[in-house]
Amino acid sequence: MAHAKHGIGNVETRFASITDDAGPFTFSSGQTVDSLTVAYETYGTLNAEKSNAILLFHALSGSQHAAGINRDVPGIDGRWTTDCHHGWWDDFIGPGRALDTDRFFVICANYVGGCYGSTGPASINPATGRPWAAAFPHIAVGDIVRSQARLLDVLGIQRLHAVIGPSTGGLACLTFATTLPERTSLVIPIATGIRTTVLNRIFLLEQILAIETDPNFRAGNYYDTPEKPTLGLALARMISHKCFVHLDAIERRARRDVVQADDHFAWYSVADQVESYMLHQGKKFVNRFDANTYLRICEMWSRFDPVKEGGAESLTELFTRSRQAGHRYLVFSIDQDYCFYPEEQAALVRALKQAEVPVMHLTVHSDKGHDSFLLEPELYTPHLSHLLANGASAPLVEKD
Amino acid sequence: MAHAKHGIGNVETRFASITDDAGPFTFSSGQTVDSLTVAYETYGTLNAEKSNAILLFHALSGSQHAAGINRDVPGIDGRWTTDCHHGWWDDFIGPGRALDTDRFFVICANYVGGCYGSTGPASINPATGRPWAAAFPHIAVGDIVRSQARLLDVLGIQRLHAVIGPSTGGLACLTFATTLPERTSLVIPIATGIRTTVLNRIFLLEQILAIETDPNFRAGNYYDTPEKPTLGLALARMISHKCFVHLDAIERRARRDVVQADDHFAWYSVADQVESYMLHQGKKFVNRFDANTYLRICEMWSRFDPVKEGGAESLTELFTRSRQAGHRYLVFSIDQDYCFYPEEQAALVRALKQAEVPVMHLTVHSDKGHDSFLLEPELYTPHLSHLLANGASAPLVEKD
Repeated sequence: MAHAKHGIGNVETRFASITDDAGPFTFSSGQTVDSLTVAYETYGTLNAEKSNAILLFHALSGSQHAAGINRDVPGIDGRWTTDCHHGWWDDFIGPGRALDTDRFFVICANYVGGCYGSTGPASINPATGRPWAAAFPHIAVGDIVRSQARLLDVLGIQRLHAVIGPSTGGLACLTFATTLPERTSLVIPIATGIRTTVLNRIFLLEQILAIETDPNFRAGNYYDTPEKPTLGLALARMISHKCFVHLDAIERRARRDVVQADDHFAWYSVADQVESYMLHQGKKFVNRFDANTYLRICEMWSRFDPVKEGGAESLTELFTRSRQAGHRYLVFSIDQDYCFYPEEQAALVRALKQAEVPVMHLTVHSDKGHDSFLLEPELYTPHLSHLLANGASAPLVEKD
Repeated sequence: MAHAKHGIGNVETRFASITDDAGPFTFSSGQTVDSLTVAYETYGTLNAEKSNAILLFHALSGSQHAAGINRDVPGIDGRWTTDCHHGWWDDFIGPGRALDTDRFFVICANYVGGCYGSTGPASINPATGRPWAAAFPHIAVGDIVRSQARLLDVLGIQRLHAVIGPSTGGLACLTFATTLPERTSLVIPIATGIRTTVLNRIFLLEQILAIETDPNFRAGNYYDTPEKPTLGLALARMISHKCFVHLDAIERRARRDVVQADDHFAWYSVADQVESYMLHQGKKFVNRFDANTYLRICEMWSRFDPVKEGGAESLTELFTRSRQAGHRYLVFSIDQDYCFYPEEQAALVRALKQAEVPVMHLTVHSDKGHDSFLLEPELYTPHLSHLLANGASAPLVEKD
């Protein structure tokens, strides 16, 4: 496998209406929206058979901009900061990279309810001419999946070569594979889980309450007011950030990055590099994210239940659909992941084996924690490349 | 060792001025307060030589009320809820118990800056006739220690038989032993640390910001307003609670205790027993605690540095004082403690051995997490009893 020196250069976000042809979209909550747009990017070329498409689900705070450089996404109100310009999985996508754009057509779309171009709480509600705000529906993982399946319909893609999702994107990846099994061949969940752990439900509740506590949150109706719930959102981000990054790495980064600690609150003054580093992560985030979207994604993650989502009775029944559809899975764990613990992928693999689904399971060893999946392409690329090139046709070592 | 069937019955909190004889009290912050009261309780009888006293430091949200039943502490504004009536270490203190009141005189005092009777932010500032509120000094572990040493002066106790501290009380226990080494013989830190970990500094910052975010916090000046920062304080408590209680225990308790989940916020509705349980813990806490005290204790813990506090250059230099004073240490770890990890007590023990201090180190195995030190007296009592009965006179097995 050869690594290309250069990535795919400048890219643009496109927008698709997923309600023009298919009609109104009904959320899992029961709420129906007449007009929904999905923001997406694509890399590489769709072949004539439309058989080389890979759908990549982004993580909690990610976007449709997975590869290349994109300096502007119109209509998202200043949130497209320089932190967003570089594709979040650029090291994995491009000619000769893990998701090889010389062979594959890679699609990444913003979650419905998102804040990077897909219709969400900050979007204008045509019925009122004002932002949806609190009135935008609550979302479930199934809503993300069904909205992106509609995007595939718009693009004329019936069956994907692969569906891939790291972190919370993995929740959508698994839900896609098990609710729409006929629409993919390969399934690649990375550092994710099949059941939201007690610890994560607690962390997510803390994040939700951090935003709810902020006086500027106003139940989500803050778009017309000058003050936004920035402190609450920053605190929420800090609460999650410590799970994404290995604590040793936080300490190292704190020592290196932050010289001065001069953050003052009403009573408390930061006096420590770790505090200052964490706060900086929180503050940087509020410039590029919307609190209403954040809340919806937290709730979506907390309530995730693929068995219920798939209308099944058990994980075995759920994954039997994968076996019947001829899926092959490649599951990655990160050894020191404090967000989605390795035990969670082990449970996923057990369930897949129970259902006799071909699965390959690898654990990468990293001192970077959960964020390894963003930072260390060399740990993932050989197996990704191999499976994507051969997995749908040639037998895996593990194949029965 | 025989366990008595009955504890020590009804007790009362007493109040001592620690500034009448010794003059104004200067906090580590440099701020001086002319008049400071310490609320304390005692159990057992001080002998004529005043040589049988044990000083016990309470944990973060504890109080001076360690044993027996106390249904009322005057002047603390409704915070003495039924949750407070039962002494927090009652199973450890009494005739025939670990801290045997037939032999020892046990003293427990509320932290200065506390909200259970010692002068703190909710107390009236004589200079203004109104609550201190934001104007009350920030506190350091050394302030707790020096205020309680003054209490010992008031009681006429020169040298303690033992100083004991579980959890954050352990920070005070270690600081007492190393800044006032001539004032104790035995030192018993339980499930505590010598250095605040990165993880705990992050958790503590989150808790501080949870309170700062609450619109009713008003920089700490909320005593004269009807609305208190209850949501912020509840969130802070939730953030810490998950470290105190083993996650499996949280899940078990959530299943057992909470039938209905009907908590609604401005946007979010709780729909899960774990969420409801955590929220219940937070809400119950705000009835019995003061946010300004909570903030000060969080800051105190986060900034804890016994080497600096002791004016030493290293841990070895610090603990050399313990060796010179003839201390013996008994250190307890809890195997699945996610608040003060076993590694932290191991580091303490290494430092003690480096300084050639006699130390016995035990790890209790528990499925209760950090809270084991409150719930499982049988795991601690035999060694506590033995050391307290024999430690200051008879050689330990480990003695050189």
